[in-house]
Amino acid sequence: MPVSLDAGFAQEMDRRDPLAGYRDEFVTRDPDTIYLDGNSLGRLPRRSIERMRHVLDRQWGERLIRAWGDDWLDAPRRIGAKIAALLGASPESVIVADSTSVNLFKLAVAALDARPGQKRIVTDELNFPSDIHVLASALELAGGDPLEIVRSRDAIRADVDGIAAAIDERTALVALSHTAFKSGYVHDMARMTALAHRAGALMLWDLSHSVGAMPLALDAAGVDLAVGCTYKYLNGGPGAPAFLYVRRELQDALANPIRGWFGQCAPFDFALEYVPEPGIARFLTGTPPILSLAAIEPGVDLLLEAGLGRLREKSVQQTEYLIGLWEALLQSLGFSLNSPRESERRGSHVSLGHPDGWRIDQALIADMRVLPDFRHPDNIRFGVAPIYTSFADIHEAVMRLARVVEERRHEKYPRARKGVT
Amino acid sequence: MPVSLDAGFAQEMDRRDPLAGYRDEFVTRDPDTIYLDGNSLGRLPRRSIERMRHVLDRQWGERLIRAWGDDWLDAPRRIGAKIAALLGASPESVIVADSTSVNLFKLAVAALDARPGQKRIVTDELNFPSDIHVLASALELAGGDPLEIVRSRDAIRADVDGIAAAIDERTALVALSHTAFKSGYVHDMARMTALAHRAGALMLWDLSHSVGAMPLALDAAGVDLAVGCTYKYLNGGPGAPAFLYVRRELQDALANPIRGWFGQCAPFDFALEYVPEPGIARFLTGTPPILSLAAIEPGVDLLLEAGLGRLREKSVQQTEYLIGLWEALLQSLGFSLNSPRESERRGSHVSLGHPDGWRIDQALIADMRVLPDFRHPDNIRFGVAPIYTSFADIHEAVMRLARVVEERRHEKYPRARKGVT
Repeated sequence: MPVSLDAGFAQEMDRRDPLAGYRDEFVTRDPDTIYLDGNSLGRLPRRSIERMRHVLDRQWGERLIRAWGDDWLDAPRRIGAKIAALLGASPESVIVADSTSVNLFKLAVAALDARPGQKRIVTDELNFPSDIHVLASALELAGGDPLEIVRSRDAIRADVDGIAAAIDERTALVALSHTAFKSGYVHDMARMTALAHRAGALMLWDLSHSVGAMPLALDAAGVDLAVGCTYKYLNGGPGAPAFLYVRRELQDALANPIRGWFGQCAPFDFALEYVPEPGIARFLTGTPPILSLAAIEPGVDLLLEAGLGRLREKSVQQTEYLIGLWEALLQSLGFSLNSPRESERRGSHVSLGHPDGWRIDQALIADMRVLPDFRHPDNIRFGVAPIYTSFADIHEAVMRLARVVEERRHEKYPRARKGVT
Repeated sequence: MPVSLDAGFAQEMDRRDPLAGYRDEFVTRDPDTIYLDGNSLGRLPRRSIERMRHVLDRQWGERLIRAWGDDWLDAPRRIGAKIAALLGASPESVIVADSTSVNLFKLAVAALDARPGQKRIVTDELNFPSDIHVLASALELAGGDPLEIVRSRDAIRADVDGIAAAIDERTALVALSHTAFKSGYVHDMARMTALAHRAGALMLWDLSHSVGAMPLALDAAGVDLAVGCTYKYLNGGPGAPAFLYVRRELQDALANPIRGWFGQCAPFDFALEYVPEPGIARFLTGTPPILSLAAIEPGVDLLLEAGLGRLREKSVQQTEYLIGLWEALLQSLGFSLNSPRESERRGSHVSLGHPDGWRIDQALIADMRVLPDFRHPDNIRFGVAPIYTSFADIHEAVMRLARVVEERRHEKYPRARKGVT
């Protein structure tokens, strides 16, 4: 894409953008603040305010306990089915429950249990550290071998050959982040899944940084298991409950290792015997947090209306635009591109490195009202949420970023870092 | 308490009630409906509507990702400290996280891990079945012996001698519901805890049906571990996240078996090594669901203002009044008292049994606009939430219940049961 440094170029791109109207579906309190952290916490959809009013006034306030039968009991499945449409998965293969960490724990233990004699889990260094800790927890409890973490050759790309070499007949599960939280590197889902299957292992994807930003095809790729956040590109609200996917044919063969009443077949019989729900619902555990759960649905509806094909097309245009501006303006100011250059291996965020990254990040937020986020050691991470990010946002953010460095505004900020989410 | 069948008696009791004003703190959409299911889902506090508006508009909508640092990261601890005041526990011993089931799993596994060589967990038949399933899950994964479930002599009372006999030097953990979900039987916390300690076991209480309805003294009783719901007497909202308690001196000796980033010491370093938070925060796992979490606080504040001593006094008066009306009016209509008669062993709900219980429950809801709940096989469970339940509510509910049977209104409802929470 030929990139112009002129603001008029961004304005023209926004005028031609068929998705531009969706920006008004989201609350924008301070138009001068540029928000490029939708990959950490998505914006508040206006419809979610209405939905919360309904849940409070009409359901909790008025229907009280009866709202469970009216609507709430069904919500984990109903919203799961909508998320399934974003994953290229059948509606009965996804459910909303717990946090990503707890879901990952449940599925990892279930996978180890389903592959007796195969005591290994393989992951890679690009995976989210919390996933790595949870996988290690699962192995410890289930009596597996220590977690195998395949190191990367650099901080940007996975070592696909190294991962392939680590998978063997002792591997029960391969667990990877589809889009890496730091560099935005995107694994080849079909290829890695086939590699796992060839060795007799199950394949699990953490889709937190992919879902809602690009089309996915879990069923077609033969993926076994997946988990992911709903509070990033799905705009489900802070800490909104996570989803989990289990391939249809596997569901009744896998056991939920934390057997709570919401995964039980007839919970209101209050029987001492535990009979799991048939299908995906067996992976529920406790009572779901309804306010946070209900808030997920409007954001998912918006993505389904906008269409993932169009969203991905815009996302690629926008990250290419950002990288073009980096080449033209930021590289000479000492910034490095810490994300893959080719769009087919890149998610919807771009990490720019700088030796003074942490101080620049602070100046950008405090002096310039641009909100990216920061990832150790030097990555300023710019998240593009194509449903509401404009080309003008990206242009203006880059101009302000250049000003920080040109005017040495970052030099008044501390070098020591104490980050937030 | 001498009981009069006259409605004037209830009105007089309400006039004298020092807590009567708190009823207006809660949303009441339909004044003709009598809600006696606050032990399943507490009413919506008016202040929670304001709080949700603040979280949506000012925090998520305006501050976006910055709200984590402003407020949200601290919320599990801050609200935990307030709940601690309801438990007779030090502020640093309680945190809000996950569901009751997941918290129970984490603490049960941690207890087994802390008592190597002691492979047993003892519980009793009055415990909530989901707790029993979760405890069995923990034992399976941690390689313990099958769960020991001490049977009761009847459906109302625990077999304290039987439990005492089951606890021995092989017991790692004794785990009981403090107030039984069906009969409302209340265990002697100090006595049972001492029994567990005498054998070298840890003691865990599920406080779901106690917290907010009576004063508790966890620290004084030397309790080791506890979990509980926030959506019953705490009025925290449907499926609101649960709390967990770990005695101060034990915290750093116990390990969270599901190690997610919120229990990590410096989560934003994104290190591959896991170093747990010091203290109670190590028992967090994933990102907490903030909308549901924030909604807990106003209900807890109301209970702290009202005072647990006064709430318990009113609760006892109200359950005594209900039992008095049962003796005077309902017993002759075929109802049995399925709760302990003596108030010191009874929580804040009263179960009335009837051979046609399920059909009567349906008629009471549909024809009479009284909302209790139903527990297998024949219990109609009337929950008194002293912060908003009036004596007039109880009088009118009993009158309507008597009318259902006298007018045989239940006979048009099906005998087969399909219950909802």
